[in-house]
Amino acid sequence: MADISSLDLSQVKRELIQANWDCSIRGLIHGATRAAELAYCLKTTKDTDGDIPKISQLDFQQEHDVYMLAKSYFDLKEYLRAVHFLKQSEFTSSVTYFLYMYARYLADEKRRSYNMTDSFTSMGASVINDDLARIKVLKTELSTKHRKKELDGFCLYLYGVVLKKLDLLKEATNVLLEAVHQEPLHWGAWQELNTLIPDKETLLSLSLPNHWIKHLFLAHMYSELQHTDEALKIYQKFVDNGFANCTYIQAQIAIAHDNSRSFDQAVEVFMKLRDIDPYRLENMDIFSNILFVKENRMELAYLAHNVCEIDKYI
Amino acid sequence: MADISSLDLSQVKRELIQANWDCSIRGLIHGATRAAELAYCLKTTKDTDGDIPKISQLDFQQEHDVYMLAKSYFDLKEYLRAVHFLKQSEFTSSVTYFLYMYARYLADEKRRSYNMTDSFTSMGASVINDDLARIKVLKTELSTKHRKKELDGFCLYLYGVVLKKLDLLKEATNVLLEAVHQEPLHWGAWQELNTLIPDKETLLSLSLPNHWIKHLFLAHMYSELQHTDEALKIYQKFVDNGFANCTYIQAQIAIAHDNSRSFDQAVEVFMKLRDIDPYRLENMDIFSNILFVKENRMELAYLAHNVCEIDKYI
Repeated sequence: MADISSLDLSQVKRELIQANWDCSIRGLIHGATRAAELAYCLKTTKDTDGDIPKISQLDFQQEHDVYMLAKSYFDLKEYLRAVHFLKQSEFTSSVTYFLYMYARYLADEKRRSYNMTDSFTSMGASVINDDLARIKVLKTELSTKHRKKELDGFCLYLYGVVLKKLDLLKEATNVLLEAVHQEPLHWGAWQELNTLIPDKETLLSLSLPNHWIKHLFLAHMYSELQHTDEALKIYQKFVDNGFANCTYIQAQIAIAHDNSRSFDQAVEVFMKLRDIDPYRLENMDIFSNILFVKENRMELAYLAHNVCEIDKYI
Repeated sequence: MADISSLDLSQVKRELIQANWDCSIRGLIHGATRAAELAYCLKTTKDTDGDIPKISQLDFQQEHDVYMLAKSYFDLKEYLRAVHFLKQSEFTSSVTYFLYMYARYLADEKRRSYNMTDSFTSMGASVINDDLARIKVLKTELSTKHRKKELDGFCLYLYGVVLKKLDLLKEATNVLLEAVHQEPLHWGAWQELNTLIPDKETLLSLSLPNHWIKHLFLAHMYSELQHTDEALKIYQKFVDNGFANCTYIQAQIAIAHDNSRSFDQAVEVFMKLRDIDPYRLENMDIFSNILFVKENRMELAYLAHNVCEIDKYI
């Protein structure tokens, strides 16, 4: 089993940098961020020459023009415009195909949230059916490609997300498992998977890739399923092996303490986290709940003030 | 004078692709989009080998880690978080320095718009002074670097924007002129410049870089200053030299016709534009004004319906 303590951290870092890049060019901002956070804390001693990923020329050669234009519109959140130009592409690159399908998915999501906010009271069956019809179209296209084994790890992730939306939870689980096998360093796929696992028995029955990141997923699941000791043991191993200052792992340790009601320890870790990542909003809701339970009014007031201040800049 | 008809379009395209990349890594989405739109329509016959820009290893070597993390937070619009990590950097790369200053600028802008919306009625002098103080800090830092000639074309652009905010219009004009000399293909700098030029006399007195893109700027200015014929002549030259399907240029032609009250011609070009870029919202306000003036109720209703539909997906 690929254990973090037995690995070459320069290699781990190189792979994380590549994952950041792979997510970033596909508009997967959260996946890119997680990979960046994990890579950032690793201070490898080796020369970092060659660490910086290159755009795969082969991949993009034929479709770089349309990719460049569509990604610009995508970044401006003009998803339909991105889709319009991408659909004229031949999809010789898996990146343009992913961007095409992902932009369609995000456009549909925007449309759905518009329908929900704008006409909540009067939202008739026809509107709900339209939303459903759109996501079913995506599902049909992705499942055809899936049968032909034409989906890469990122498209498998998207297919899993679509299946989840349609409440096809067993299929979603299987497809997301395929996704993490093909792209283990895309954290988004693990994250989608974790909400589909109700108990430890199911967790242990899954065939997970033999990759160091699996342990971060297991730790996350153990923490959520109240097996805190097991979770903390894994996180400690990461801390001991180069990830001591990783904000993601520190936050997860704090959350695990919270899940096991070790509030004092949780507060301690959250305070440390605040030192290294003072403008973080992620997980601060949990910190604030703990401070409330502990009746730590001073810290709560300080946190609340900080969060409100940060929010003014976002 | 660098005239588009005398240039190698493969080279022009290569430079535009590089400009798209340079803007994109700095979070300048609009600049990246304009370069992409100009590049996209150029169908060069030459082999495009080598067209795809590479991340400059030299530039990033030392600071790729912090860049990667900060850019992720930047893309999530968590500007203060990006700033926090970037400020620990030594800024050996002009890219990280730009991102650091730009994230600070955008954070300040967010704060300012928060102050304006949240407490419009009660906004006291102290709040306005705070906003002003923050932008002055940026100005001071940038002007020190400027004196030492340490600002690249993108930082000069940002410095120009900051000077404009402080109503230092003469200084802003000079700095933006430096910016377009250093980075002529960053359209954002031209765009900032164009609002600073009140008349043709001022326009002709400026020392502009001898670069083909200058002509697009001149055309834009001529159009705004009601010298429509001169504007259209320039745009036509671009159309005749490879840019026939460029959405930006088609839109500019339509706007020039509108400026000279040639409404029928404007409508015609807008209709053509709609065919190639059906999900465009940019400039559709102008199209709708023309249709209103022309009392073209059918088209107006169609346009209004389309715009509302597109808006649901954004």
